[in-house]
Amino acid sequence: MFDTATAILDLLGVVVFATTGALVASRKEMDIVGFALLALATGVGGGTLRDLILDVPVFWVTSPSYLLICIAVAIVVFFTAHVPQSRYRLVLWLDAAGLALFAVAGTEKALLAGTGPVVAVALGIIGATFGGIIRDVLGHEPSVILTREIYVTAALAGAVAFALLDAAGLSREGAVLAAVALGFAVRGAALYWGLSLPRYRSRPGTKV
Amino acid sequence: MFDTATAILDLLGVVVFATTGALVASRKEMDIVGFALLALATGVGGGTLRDLILDVPVFWVTSPSYLLICIAVAIVVFFTAHVPQSRYRLVLWLDAAGLALFAVAGTEKALLAGTGPVVAVALGIIGATFGGIIRDVLGHEPSVILTREIYVTAALAGAVAFALLDAAGLSREGAVLAAVALGFAVRGAALYWGLSLPRYRSRPGTKV
Amino acid sequence: MFDTATAILDLLGVVVFATTGALVASRKEMDIVGFALLALATGVGGGTLRDLILDVPVFWVTSPSYLLICIAVAIVVFFTAHVPQSRYRLVLWLDAAGLALFAVAGTEKALLAGTGPVVAVALGIIGATFGGIIRDVLGHEPSVILTREIYVTAALAGAVAFALLDAAGLSREGAVLAAVALGFAVRGAALYWGLSLPRYRSRPGTKV
Repeated sequence: MFDTATAILDLLGVVVFATTGALVASRKEMDIVGFALLALATGVGGGTLRDLILDVPVFWVTSPSYLLICIAVAIVVFFTAHVPQSRYRLVLWLDAAGLALFAVAGTEKALLAGTGPVVAVALGIIGATFGGIIRDVLGHEPSVILTREIYVTAALAGAVAFALLDAAGLSREGAVLAAVALGFAVRGAALYWGLSLPRYRSRPGTKV
Repeated sequence: MFDTATAILDLLGVVVFATTGALVASRKEMDIVGFALLALATGVGGGTLRDLILDVPVFWVTSPSYLLICIAVAIVVFFTAHVPQSRYRLVLWLDAAGLALFAVAGTEKALLAGTGPVVAVALGIIGATFGGIIRDVLGHEPSVILTREIYVTAALAGAVAFALLDAAGLSREGAVLAAVALGFAVRGAALYWGLSLPRYRSRPGTKV
Repeated sequence: MFDTATAILDLLGVVVFATTGALVASRKEMDIVGFALLALATGVGGGTLRDLILDVPVFWVTSPSYLLICIAVAIVVFFTAHVPQSRYRLVLWLDAAGLALFAVAGTEKALLAGTGPVVAVALGIIGATFGGIIRDVLGHEPSVILTREIYVTAALAGAVAFALLDAAGLSREGAVLAAVALGFAVRGAALYWGLSLPRYRSRPGTKV
């Protein structure tokens, strides 16, 4: 039962992130191979770095179907990217879903591998954010990591919530659902209302 | 006999990629250490990521002579980079050779390590493209990955051809030669005739 | 005794690099999470890649306190970044200290893990430079790697000095101190007097 829950998290995360990669490829008017490349790099990039650092087999080396899913997503987006009204908004919202899904999936995977909660949360955040960083570097988009609106904080909220609920003895399924919902809600609220944390302000007269 | 064939592929790939890195350093008028750095990052970068994901010892940790070769290439280029008429064209053509060599070398290495063909092709492409990505990021050059002309497709062709010929029972040497030739021919044709795949076109009136 | 010396090197390196990351975050007027992210990526990024290539457990997975230290640094800098007269100069000088510390720490760690001196020096340089590369990419700063003044050469000097002194039978503590001092002195002299190595110059009439 539990294994299915994790597998579903991972699968959903890969699909939504791969879609954002392919949508960025469409904004850049790439060819189909460029779509596949950005879908793959975004879909599996974060989980790859997470697994390397955790020193477990990289998930798509064990289950190559993740690669085929990203390619399928790229093909579908290549022929349907004209449908959504604003591809940029769609990227942001799908990215929010992927962020929440991978933050929780990474935290759980690390805890199951035996790390403490601090390392698990760090790996959750790495898995949740690195795919988007690669997508934005390869696609020459402004980095979503540096966006004004709350971003990494949402991944942090989801990862910490899962670690706490899991430690508190909640069922895995309940902890996963609640933590993913929280992570998505935090990023979604930031997107919808333009919420941001207070920023560092240079004092007048100070050289930077 | 076979081991020699692989070793030659790897060696040639490192030399031509290191040369492209050093040529980019010359375009940026770097010092000799910058030449060495770009030669090393380009020459061994793709194979490093490939080996990390494949979970085998990184090839230059086992055989440090690859590092010394990159440094030797950097020194030679530092004193001869004024010879070629167009360094930019030379980079493109050497990069095409490295792309084909590493695409096949990576696919073969992964198959020998026991992965299936999908993962092997993916690792071939990663090994073939990642060095160039690092070179272009470090050297602030426009990314060759995003070029209009067919690029990743050539690595894909070489990697898939090797996997198919190998599965069909062709001798290793024959499969290697045919697949490298195909990969280089695809990229070379794209460079020579400016071939590109059809690109995604935004429909008029659609917001991106 | 020796283990303490290494632990101190690592700790100092993480603290000064994390500080440079947080200072770059302040130059970009990020929020507190952005400070933490850049402090973490800069503080532990180089050592992470070094440990992955060396195939030893990543140091902060074994000792999560490094992550907490980076976060503490980020908080302190968030509230004190207005104090220094020129944050940019401070980044350069702290970066010089981190460069020397990590160059030696990485070389020693690799030698202790059983690599030869060439690989050890390469891993020292990777550990010393990669954190700064990530910081500059994430923070959209001009890459310190491409600076006109001597940079990688200083890491090379520290790493080579340690490998030589260690092979010559000097005590670990003495070799560490001398090599760190040399690395810092080379970079510091380059910063102070604007020293640079001779650069490649394009010949007139040559197309690049």
